[in-house]
Amino acid sequence: MAPDSGSKGLVSGHRFFLPAVHVAGNRVSFPPHTSHQISRVLRLKIGDVVEVFDGAGQEHCVRLEELGREALGAIVRSFPSQSEPDIFVTLYQGLLKGKKLELVLQKCTEIGILRFVSVQSERSIAGEPSESRFERLLEIVREAAEQSGRGVVPLVEGSRSLAQGLAEAAVRGPVLFLWEEESLAPLPAASDYQAGSELSLFVGPEGGFGEAEAASARAAGAEVVSLGRRILRAETAAIVASALVLQGH
Amino acid sequence: MAPDSGSKGLVSGHRFFLPAVHVAGNRVSFPPHTSHQISRVLRLKIGDVVEVFDGAGQEHCVRLEELGREALGAIVRSFPSQSEPDIFVTLYQGLLKGKKLELVLQKCTEIGILRFVSVQSERSIAGEPSESRFERLLEIVREAAEQSGRGVVPLVEGSRSLAQGLAEAAVRGPVLFLWEEESLAPLPAASDYQAGSELSLFVGPEGGFGEAEAASARAAGAEVVSLGRRILRAETAAIVASALVLQGH
Repeated sequence: MAPDSGSKGLVSGHRFFLPAVHVAGNRVSFPPHTSHQISRVLRLKIGDVVEVFDGAGQEHCVRLEELGREALGAIVRSFPSQSEPDIFVTLYQGLLKGKKLELVLQKCTEIGILRFVSVQSERSIAGEPSESRFERLLEIVREAAEQSGRGVVPLVEGSRSLAQGLAEAAVRGPVLFLWEEESLAPLPAASDYQAGSELSLFVGPEGGFGEAEAASARAAGAEVVSLGRRILRAETAAIVASALVLQGH
Repeated sequence: MAPDSGSKGLVSGHRFFLPAVHVAGNRVSFPPHTSHQISRVLRLKIGDVVEVFDGAGQEHCVRLEELGREALGAIVRSFPSQSEPDIFVTLYQGLLKGKKLELVLQKCTEIGILRFVSVQSERSIAGEPSESRFERLLEIVREAAEQSGRGVVPLVEGSRSLAQGLAEAAVRGPVLFLWEEESLAPLPAASDYQAGSELSLFVGPEGGFGEAEAASARAAGAEVVSLGRRILRAETAAIVASALVLQGH
């Protein structure tokens, strides 16, 4: 992105998530955090135009009209978001340690995952994130959605057992369960999934899923698949699998 | 990986890069750094078997016979590495700031990149890594190769200009140049590349490549391609493009 915030009326290249509650007619009011960002951090000026998305698939170009503690703007143009994937992918991720989970959420948001669910798995070393860490995760996902041009902010949900995850995923559509074993089937081609498909992707924690867990996934109707002959770290596997599944969507 | 270092004679699940100079007949001597790792960090015992790869495509199972400052072992079994990709991909990466470059090198080593070259680009913010940072990058690549089951340790080369990079890449095989523009062609399918192909992948710095740079790439015979409608950070683009190109190889 090449910001050109100096030129009045041109889009600044800055993009913000603004829930619909902040929009009334063609007027928008930015909450304090975003207003601070606009005035103090990015030093935008009255007349600059920013992009705003409401998280429900709608995008707006907004001309800044008032700066300060709560910046105000006027919608110049609205249009449906063009950048959301045409398939809906949930990543069920075995609980990972701090930075690794943050990396997965940031990268997979850019790539196009719609929903993140943590899964308790027998080899998980990491526990449930604390409330403050969970807040941080939500913030990372929101920022990644803003930067990458997503039309929605992906959901981040608290953890559940593998059995619960598998059961709820199975009713929604195809389930891919990543397991490191060379003889396994490769990930299906991204082009196998039609627009509108709902898909679930299970990726293990640091030590991978166990044999019994893979068996239970198969019993629950999941397709147990491998990413190939090299051993990927858990966080790399999540990013690679998301990229392969969402390619072209 | 599930180490079972307690059971004598079984493979411990630990894997080390050991250049061929440390192998004489069926005897191997581990350098001090690795010996320290073996004895002090992993607390392996005499009789434990570790995996060793020589970086040139050969793998060995080695039984530990002596521990201490320079551990010694005997080769139990040797075999050619099974996990190297069957295509040879060089990643030409626009210079990135510290942690981002480390992330790209670690993840893309796991994924199967064979060679990394830094490229000076008009929007590069980061400079050439210092000597100590370059050493750290080599270490990261070596560790990622050990952990991911690579048969070789990828090369990391100092930077060159974009024009130099494009010229040297063009004589070796197909060149893919990533550029963020929606109307561009998507990345070719991984299955388009036959075993033995040499391929080069150009990924921009934080701000992406400029328009003139894309034009020069096209003039040099590169295929200018896009990763899709969402805007990926530079480091995410490198990881995603590597995964897509190396899928199934």
